[in-house]
Amino acid sequence: MARKQETTRVVDGRVVGDHEAGRRRAEEEAEAGEVRFVPPLNFAMVDNGIFRSGFPDSANFTFLKSLALRSVIYLCPEPDPEANNVFLRANGIRLYQFGIEMCKEPFVNIPEETIREAMKILIDVNNHPVLIHCKRGKHRTGCLVGCLRKLQKWCLSSIFDEYQRFAGAKARVSDQRFIELFDISSLKNTPLTFSCSKR
Amino acid sequence: MARKQETTRVVDGRVVGDHEAGRRRAEEEAEAGEVRFVPPLNFAMVDNGIFRSGFPDSANFTFLKSLALRSVIYLCPEPDPEANNVFLRANGIRLYQFGIEMCKEPFVNIPEETIREAMKILIDVNNHPVLIHCKRGKHRTGCLVGCLRKLQKWCLSSIFDEYQRFAGAKARVSDQRFIELFDISSLKNTPLTFSCSKR
Repeated sequence: MARKQETTRVVDGRVVGDHEAGRRRAEEEAEAGEVRFVPPLNFAMVDNGIFRSGFPDSANFTFLKSLALRSVIYLCPEPDPEANNVFLRANGIRLYQFGIEMCKEPFVNIPEETIREAMKILIDVNNHPVLIHCKRGKHRTGCLVGCLRKLQKWCLSSIFDEYQRFAGAKARVSDQRFIELFDISSLKNTPLTFSCSKR
Repeated sequence: MARKQETTRVVDGRVVGDHEAGRRRAEEEAEAGEVRFVPPLNFAMVDNGIFRSGFPDSANFTFLKSLALRSVIYLCPEPDPEANNVFLRANGIRLYQFGIEMCKEPFVNIPEETIREAMKILIDVNNHPVLIHCKRGKHRTGCLVGCLRKLQKWCLSSIFDEYQRFAGAKARVSDQRFIELFDISSLKNTPLTFSCSKR
């Protein structure tokens, strides 16, 4: 029988051409679920509908899509890269940007009012699921999550334990002092429906 | 006007007796929400309905109650302390114990079959909300969560990043090799409905 010249190989005991072998390989890969999710650096779930991370890039988009995000709270002053903007628009994700400058100790000065505005967006369940991110997911993100934990009535030692887990060797006393001093009284009447604050 | 002898003080411009001042103070404290939640050491949310931590003690019970747990996966061979048993029974929380011995490198040998059995309990949403814990929430808990992330199709570098965040300076190559080699194929047909695995 005349056949087109093509390399052949044995797949499951059958001799098949390259094309068919390629299709089967793709099918097998799909069945085997070879897609791998790549969460952003320092990614974690904070509470129901709230996530945190370092700066996401295009490698993370498939994973981020799986979270079905409704909004992103971005805590740096630099404009979001165009690829990220395209991703957010394509997936109907609102971007809330709060430009907090990165400073190194001892010149750290987290602006309380900016964090308060970000908190309002963060605790509004209409914005959930929401991803909080800055550059590395350590300091600015750590401060915002720390203030949320205060509102959730966590004791300070547990708040700092969590802050330090993400900041690692870069943990800053000044960030932790900021969290300790942050006044949550104006936010207290907001109903919190997250799992870690149900009683 | 004749009054009973009692110490008086000024509260909000009104002179009141000790008893009334005490009641008001209690009310104010309640309003101010002075209850503080104490999450267990190394506590975190893994995914919807899944939490992880180190060994919980009585200081953590109020917080744990707020999670409305349905079960606990406990990964040590030692019997659960009586106080913890009482807490679990009083709150209708099922205890699933998998006695994995603590070993130090280079003699670490995480039993694959035990982790597989724990995985089945973990991914069964009828057991959620569930808390996974061992002693410090680093190695045994880190291995089980790492295997869950594999089933959730996370890439290994992200799985190890998370493992290391909780293990800190105590991170073990042998645990990470265990996660890398763990065969999830027998668990693949289980539907996962957590947020990090929705597509």
